[in-house]
Amino acid sequence: MVDTAPRTTSKTTKSAGAPPRRPASAAGSKPARPATSAPVPTPANGDAASHAKIDVASLGRQLLGTWADLRLVARERAAQPDMQRIDGQSMAEHRERVLGQLKALVEQGAVHRAFPKELGGQDDHGGNIASFEELVIADPSLQIKAGVQWGLFGSAVVHLGTEYHHQTFLPDIMSLKVPGAFAMTETGHGSDVAAIGTTATYDEAKQQFVINTPFRGAWKDYLGNAALHGTAAVVFAQLITKGVNHGVHAFYVPIRNTKGGFLKGIGGEDDGLKGGLNGIDNGRLHFTNVRVPRENLLNRYGSVAEDGTYSSPIASPGRRFFTMLGTLVQGRVSLDGAATSAAAMALTIAITYGNQRRQFNAASDTDEEVLLDYQRHQRRLLPKLATTYAQVFAHDEFLLKFDAVFSGREDTDDDRQDLETIAAALKPLSTWHALETLQEAREATGGAGFLAENRIVGLRQDLDIYVTFEGDNNVLLQLVAKRLLTDFSKQFANADAGAMARYVVQSTAERAYHGSGLRRLAQTIADFGSTARSVTELRDEETQRELLTDRVEAMIAEIAGHLRDARKLPKADAAAAFNRHQNQLIEAARAHGELLQWEAFTRALAKTTDPGTKQVLTWVRDLFGLGLVEKHLAWYLMNGRLSPQRAQAVTAYIDRLLERLRPHAQDLVDAFGYTPEHLRAKIASGAELERQDEARAHYAAQRAAGTLPVPEKSKK
Amino acid sequence: MVDTAPRTTSKTTKSAGAPPRRPASAAGSKPARPATSAPVPTPANGDAASHAKIDVASLGRQLLGTWADLRLVARERAAQPDMQRIDGQSMAEHRERVLGQLKALVEQGAVHRAFPKELGGQDDHGGNIASFEELVIADPSLQIKAGVQWGLFGSAVVHLGTEYHHQTFLPDIMSLKVPGAFAMTETGHGSDVAAIGTTATYDEAKQQFVINTPFRGAWKDYLGNAALHGTAAVVFAQLITKGVNHGVHAFYVPIRNTKGGFLKGIGGEDDGLKGGLNGIDNGRLHFTNVRVPRENLLNRYGSVAEDGTYSSPIASPGRRFFTMLGTLVQGRVSLDGAATSAAAMALTIAITYGNQRRQFNAASDTDEEVLLDYQRHQRRLLPKLATTYAQVFAHDEFLLKFDAVFSGREDTDDDRQDLETIAAALKPLSTWHALETLQEAREATGGAGFLAENRIVGLRQDLDIYVTFEGDNNVLLQLVAKRLLTDFSKQFANADAGAMARYVVQSTAERAYHGSGLRRLAQTIADFGSTARSVTELRDEETQRELLTDRVEAMIAEIAGHLRDARKLPKADAAAAFNRHQNQLIEAARAHGELLQWEAFTRALAKTTDPGTKQVLTWVRDLFGLGLVEKHLAWYLMNGRLSPQRAQAVTAYIDRLLERLRPHAQDLVDAFGYTPEHLRAKIASGAELERQDEARAHYAAQRAAGTLPVPEKSKK
Repeated sequence: MVDTAPRTTSKTTKSAGAPPRRPASAAGSKPARPATSAPVPTPANGDAASHAKIDVASLGRQLLGTWADLRLVARERAAQPDMQRIDGQSMAEHRERVLGQLKALVEQGAVHRAFPKELGGQDDHGGNIASFEELVIADPSLQIKAGVQWGLFGSAVVHLGTEYHHQTFLPDIMSLKVPGAFAMTETGHGSDVAAIGTTATYDEAKQQFVINTPFRGAWKDYLGNAALHGTAAVVFAQLITKGVNHGVHAFYVPIRNTKGGFLKGIGGEDDGLKGGLNGIDNGRLHFTNVRVPRENLLNRYGSVAEDGTYSSPIASPGRRFFTMLGTLVQGRVSLDGAATSAAAMALTIAITYGNQRRQFNAASDTDEEVLLDYQRHQRRLLPKLATTYAQVFAHDEFLLKFDAVFSGREDTDDDRQDLETIAAALKPLSTWHALETLQEAREATGGAGFLAENRIVGLRQDLDIYVTFEGDNNVLLQLVAKRLLTDFSKQFANADAGAMARYVVQSTAERAYHGSGLRRLAQTIADFGSTARSVTELRDEETQRELLTDRVEAMIAEIAGHLRDARKLPKADAAAAFNRHQNQLIEAARAHGELLQWEAFTRALAKTTDPGTKQVLTWVRDLFGLGLVEKHLAWYLMNGRLSPQRAQAVTAYIDRLLERLRPHAQDLVDAFGYTPEHLRAKIASGAELERQDEARAHYAAQRAAGTLPVPEKSKK
Repeated sequence: MVDTAPRTTSKTTKSAGAPPRRPASAAGSKPARPATSAPVPTPANGDAASHAKIDVASLGRQLLGTWADLRLVARERAAQPDMQRIDGQSMAEHRERVLGQLKALVEQGAVHRAFPKELGGQDDHGGNIASFEELVIADPSLQIKAGVQWGLFGSAVVHLGTEYHHQTFLPDIMSLKVPGAFAMTETGHGSDVAAIGTTATYDEAKQQFVINTPFRGAWKDYLGNAALHGTAAVVFAQLITKGVNHGVHAFYVPIRNTKGGFLKGIGGEDDGLKGGLNGIDNGRLHFTNVRVPRENLLNRYGSVAEDGTYSSPIASPGRRFFTMLGTLVQGRVSLDGAATSAAAMALTIAITYGNQRRQFNAASDTDEEVLLDYQRHQRRLLPKLATTYAQVFAHDEFLLKFDAVFSGREDTDDDRQDLETIAAALKPLSTWHALETLQEAREATGGAGFLAENRIVGLRQDLDIYVTFEGDNNVLLQLVAKRLLTDFSKQFANADAGAMARYVVQSTAERAYHGSGLRRLAQTIADFGSTARSVTELRDEETQRELLTDRVEAMIAEIAGHLRDARKLPKADAAAAFNRHQNQLIEAARAHGELLQWEAFTRALAKTTDPGTKQVLTWVRDLFGLGLVEKHLAWYLMNGRLSPQRAQAVTAYIDRLLERLRPHAQDLVDAFGYTPEHLRAKIASGAELERQDEARAHYAAQRAAGTLPVPEKSKK
């Protein structure tokens, strides 16, 4: 690869023309981008399976998932230039453009699917999110600003409000007559919503709530629509009546007059330029004795009577709080989907380019190598492709679960808790993965990847905030870990440490996805560690499942053992004990999320029918599963789950999988179904192949004409 | 941390006032930012050493390194608002601003230090880079555009040209009368410079070179100064005379007239908006039969006589090529330094904020925790701080080496090769580290970190390209690996595989830094693996050295064993064999770079005299060294270097080091010496501490007055 000795001469043009590719858009949307791939080499170890062939169309359909048709409609919309970002616009221009796009979405009837039928919606929660998250293709600012208006501001009125609020406020929210802010986060409190400083104190005499942000840290901050466009807000505040604080509740509060000026008692600031998402007018709001009618309390989970008496259908203030927040889980659902789409687009761009771009001629005197033929390049991109596949499948199951809960079909407390745990496990993994993948794609496409015209840097800038908003990723993973610990302690309430280590429970094989809590092993930990397994067993689905499941359980069991006596300690000491395992806890939660993704991938694989597709997809799943094992190899070794010899086999087998998958890389990204209008990246347009062909033809012609200068080296 | 149960009530204000901090700017520049830190907790395990105290002033001086005074002057300049970036400027405005700043640098006499004395320079190469890289504090665009003008365009004339070129071209380059481009990279060839397509064919009749970019892939691309400001360029092209191609040479080529129009035969395009560095006008250039006089060949390493006869002081075309490129190593030197500065700034911002920001009240009913007291937060930031320290020390040694070579004091072929190997090892590590650190700092500061006003996102956007320009990081590491393989094979030209595995060579302890090649172990590999060592030995310097050294050597030995017979294979098969180990090779090179950093840190530690500083710095070095071991723990386990028990001790000891270092975190970042004018981040200004104090005072006052509402929970 780094043979940089002076070189010139005898270029040939053998096999310059790639065979025409079948349409990339598998599922029947727009025609795919033109035939662009360089010839695919045969893998070094040409076993029979290497002749497997992907049915791109059927795989594409499977990737689109449960709401395929709605996604295709949404992608048509995202392909419209009017809906897309224009690079280089000023912040002010970009903000106005996105506001205009929101209006266009209303005109096209594209955003009311989740709203109540009686108000013109369709009560279709899963379909709404599926459509909505595809907006990321057009412009993440558009996705998020639409999310602020209808997914947060509007949803809060739907889910926290009652009939009066629906009738009174929703029509103008749906039509965008009233753009609004979702005023939850404060400068001083992000992740810890329960501790916000804003107060809404009930005034019995006037039957009004008086809203205050009593110190600078209590100002609402980072709110979309707050800097410019919002004329109302759903404000979260500590509800105080009769001298009692009933905790955080939501209030509908007008904030600006029709001319854009703040109403009395309200002020604010513009958050100004951000690292990305500059099509959204984030800003700050503060409130000084702002009065709203008693009826403006969104009172589904807590009401105040005229005389100031508080009542709630949920007795426990803690459970009430989590129930209210739980209605807003859809933000995390959609970020999981949008982040996965961004990763898929980045890989489509980088792999298409990597299949055309040539650099260095290690193997030949004439032809340079295609980037994707380099092992390192495969190592950089293909495992990320495997993870993206896992996320696509996990996301569809997640969305199904969300739809089941929000439609009311499966809406018990347990269902809601499971949904929130899945959300808290998957959103961190997919949003971090998106950033890592966008960055790797940027680097894998070199200087070209740094140009805005190739799309990757803009997406990365916009997606950056996804890892900390709608729940900071580390905080979310800690929530998952606490859930796992709780599940664990329920099972072993009276067990000693030895019993914990020996526990033998039912197989995971039959556990449905909705049981998102602690996974259980079919074998004792002790047995598993001592079982000698052959290298080929790594390919075995059950081996992968056991390795991944065992790790989650053993980590949780270990931490639980350490923390067993912590409850008995004074609060500060208990917190210190917990803190000493915080990093480990978060890693256990990550392992749990990875397992969820692996399981979803494996279930999807079971549904794949075309034999060639199934074969290749099995390799992709194995790459994902064994990639996780390799990432955590030290753990498996330290805990006696893998011998040093088997551990070395993991990496060796991954190298082999990369060779096998390399010829299918283009099919695997084509199956995502993005058209040139979606990708909008010049380097993925076929321009690079044209340049390579032109250069090779130039040298071939010189050679044929005998005009190619002789290299100095050959004269000696 | 995620105790989100409703909470209110009894806040106290105990210890709201932080003790005044000593000046952060250790080395006598501007006064440091105001006292801002929250009280520092005592670590849980209060051993005697935890009373160690850093002498921030002397540590700061040590961090500034060999050219401390020049750095301080450069930092004064970087503190000038006129030199700084204005967020939100359009690309056009930003470009003009940076051009104006370049002119100001000339007026201030700030950029001629590396040029020849007879032309007004100072022949001070190390000092020049030290000053230059501090510009990243003001605006990375300014750093890189200055680098293009004087570090690349100007340096090429200095190092590749001869007396005529110095006299003729340098004065206008130095004065910026002629802004110029460094036209090496092409759309089709970045890392593989030897294969560029541009030709310079000698025309004997007219004694001119005729320059052509014969196909689209041969267009020069990504060139700073090419889109707008450049009126000349140093163009790299295949030198062809008398039908022979003598390889890549550099030519001085005027490209624009005084009105900004392209000269005859020249055209170009603007690269447009980029992911960052938008203060630089990157663009493309193409040449069609552009003629320049014979004298415009920068002919230090290759000349063409009037009659077209080629001659060179270096007979081998390969060696000539690498010698020419080697003169341009300073770009990599300065990127290593600038990337390290960016990481240091990011950590100063994030750690200062993490020391003031409070969130969640796990340990107390009243006070929330300071972020940096959370184990996970420490895990996220402190190891990166340790790496940054290692890089600061490694960079100073690197710069000394560079200065020794470029001043001519130590300028043998071996010296140059060592310098290039160090550059190829350190630049990738530090530039990747900068991106990871900026990202972690962004996430650790949450939504605030995403605002441009807090600086981190802008720095990250600008630094992104550092990982692929001036040599793609992966390509550079592969160069390092090839050097290590060559060193290895020289030592064992005739050895069999067994001999390789058993080799016992001299201790590394006495090897000077300039021997940058393959490190050697004091023990046989077999012995080392079986030696039982106690946990405390992990702290031992020699243990760390051996673990890190052994890994580099064993990896290289293993790959060399696999590739031993590859030379005998046909070219394509040899390339395939090499390719199958490419990933492993690059990982070996990374291990080598990490070892260089660890060694530099350890040498710096030996020079630290203040006992408290030395104690804390030893922990930081241990955190760096053991952090590397932990990162590669699977390798140590698989290869029998660490037992599972010792491996677990690594992580446990790191956790302990984090607790020990936590109280010193602020001192450690203060010692970098950045003032508020350098950081320009609102969240690191003390504003957060003010907000926290105000909030706590508010609740305390309510409590004292008996007006704090009672939480609902407490009523039950």
